Parts: sequence; C-alpha cells; structure tokens
Amino acid sequence: MKLYYSPGACSLAPHIVLEEGGKPYEAQRVNLAGGEQRTEAYLKIHPNGRVPALVLDDGTVITENTAILPYLGKKFGLWPQDEMGEAKALSLIGLFAAGVHPAWAHISRPGRYATDETAHPNLQATGIASFTTYLRQIDGMLAGREWFGDAYSVLDAYGLVFYAWATRRAADFPMAELKNYRAFRDRMVARPAVRKVLEDEKVAV
Amino acid sequence: MKLYYSPGACSLAPHIVLEEGGKPYEAQRVNLAGGEQRTEAYLKIHPNGRVPALVLDDGTVITENTAILPYLGKKFGLWPQDEMGEAKALSLIGLFAAGVHPAWAHISRPGRYATDETAHPNLQATGIASFTTYLRQIDGMLAGREWFGDAYSVLDAYGLVFYAWATRRAADFPMAELKNYRAFRDRMVARPAVRKVLEDEKVAV
Repeated sequence: MKLYYSPGACSLAPHIVLEEGGKPYEAQRVNLAGGEQRTEAYLKIHPNGRVPALVLDDGTVITENTAILPYLGKKFGLWPQDEMGEAKALSLIGLFAAGVHPAWAHISRPGRYATDETAHPNLQATGIASFTTYLRQIDGMLAGREWFGDAYSVLDAYGLVFYAWATRRAADFPMAELKNYRAFRDRMVARPAVRKVLEDEKVAV
Repeated sequence: MKLYYSPGACSLAPHIVLEEGGKPYEAQRVNLAGGEQRTEAYLKIHPNGRVPALVLDDGTVITENTAILPYLGKKFGLWPQDEMGEAKALSLIGLFAAGVHPAWAHISRPGRYATDETAHPNLQATGIASFTTYLRQIDGMLAGREWFGDAYSVLDAYGLVFYAWATRRAADFPMAELKNYRAFRDRMVARPAVRKVLEDEKVAV
C-alpha cells in the first residue's frame, strides 16, 4: 500500500495506523506548498487535490479519512468489532472530519473560504473560538479514559492530529486546561510507532 | 427508532432511509429557527446541537450522518456488502459531510464562520463558487450511472440533499448544466418513500 501524505496534515492519522500495522508500506510525500496537489498527475489520484490518498496494491485508490481509517483499522485490528462500537467510531470520525478539521482550516487556510483577504483575521478569530470549543469537547471525551474507544484504535491516531495542530499555535488555545487530552498525548508518544511517524514527519506535539 | 430532524436539513437523508426501510419509526422535528438545538434537553441528545440524531429503542444515540447512514443502511439492505464497496461509500459520505456540506453552510450560515457581518457577502460568494465545483463533480460522478453506488443505497438519499439545497438558490448555480444530477433527482422522486418524505418535510427539489 502507498499513502500520499503531507507532513503534519490529517494524513498523519493513516500514516500512524500504517506504522502500527507493522506491514511494509510506502509513504509518498505530496508537496502542498509547491502545489503538487493541483498537478494533473495528482488529480488523477485524488480529484479534489487533497491528502490523504491510499493506493492499494491493485491500484484502487481510497480517499477521505472517513474511508481510509476504517479500511486500515479493520485490516490491522484497530477497529471495533461490535455494531455499536463501529457506529460510535464512525460518529467520532465524522465529528473530526466535518467539524473539527474545517474549524482548523479556517485558521490555517482562510483563503479557501473567503477570497477577500480583509475578511481573514475575523475568519481566523472565529475559527480559533470554534476550534477551542472542540478541543474542550475532546478533552471531556477523554476524561477517565485511556483511548477514544474501548481499546486503542484508529480514532486515537486521528485524535492526535488535532492536538498537534493546537500545539502549532499554542498561544491561541487553552493548552494548560486540556489535562485529559495532554495525558492522552503522552500515552500516544509512548508508542514506538507513533514516535517514529512523528519523527519522520517532523511533527511536534 | 426516533430521528431528530429539521425540514430540509441534511437529516433529510436518514429520514428518507428510514422511510425506505419500511419499519415503524418516529420523526421528531427540532425547531432550529427557535433555537431548540441549544436547549439543555436537546444538548443531552446531541452535544453539538445539530441534526440529525438517531435514538435507538434502547436509548443509545447515534449522531453524524457518517455513522447514522451506514448504521441504517446495514439494517435495511441499503449498504454495499463488499469491502471495496463499503470503502467507496464511506469515502463519498466523507466528501459529502466534510466538503460539500460545509461549502453550503458558508452560504446559509456565514455567521458560524465569521462573527463580522461585513465579511458575510464574500464568504457566501466564495461558498457559492465552492459548492458549484462540488455540484459539477457530483454531476460527473453520476454520468452513465443510475445511482452513486452499484445499487440504490443510503448514498443516494444523501446525494439528493445537495440537489435540494442548490434548488433553493437555483439562480446561484448552473442547474441547467447538471443533466446527470437532474436525471438522478427524477429517479429519486419517482420512489414513493422519497416523495413521501419530501412532502412531509415540504422540501422542493
């Protein structure tokens, strides 16, 4: 399998899961700053020009973390096996992908949402408020828990992404308040596979 | 099962699926205009104050279309049974939930993204451009196909939502160009369950 990723992007989640899986895989960096995601070659892999994209050995492409994470999770025993566990996992992935990630994108890529640059400071400030609400919600989910699900799973790899993003702009967020999320971060970086991928991607958490 | 919905919101998708399922269910309207989603009672059901929320007979709550649609789809035979069909379905649900829906929300609820009202016209214009790109992409997906997947599924119920939204502001979008999407819409409204829910919710498509 081959994962198209960009360092520190949400592709960090499937990258960690692939490393946890322990099977050989290829991690292919996409140069977002250089616009590689908009090249004809990359748009054939991912028509929306985003990362991650997972290419299977038979050439089939899977895009979107909502699909890549369950696919890899099932492959590597990092996915709940019961019906309700699966529903809860898909719900959290949905909140992450459709709520938390877009809130961050308003801070990091306001141009995606407003062509008028004078609107960007307010867009970013509103995004910071919204992302803060999500950080607190995530911190609450982790109260008294080791992992997001009943056992270590792909959800934890995904959940670490947003902590890493908050860390990048720590002055904007109530990091000291997020005690459960911080303890979760510590448990994550204690895992060799997580540490290896963070080092490969040069991501600080 | 009980579905919390708001007429014409993305809860239209699970509402259609429940109707297609043919089993008794309850559809409970949430008065978004009146702020019911921010009441203590509703926040106990859905901590983010959104629709849809699905409450199972044992009281378990499932939120997010990324979870509700696969859950109901499996229950009612409206979900692909093979591994790759499932991955493709979860990918499309991800694109809809994390890409297409947020693009629309910038048009319909710009205040969610910018507290400064002077930014709203540009936010909406940028959202219209982005939603238009998605409408064309969806139209392309449907070329030569009857349904989004290999058979009628929950994906089709979800896909109809965005056509209904475009219809609300038809002057902003290249509706005449979307021939495949329009033909899909016609196939959808030919289904009695779809027609019944559209009438119940008073949604024009």
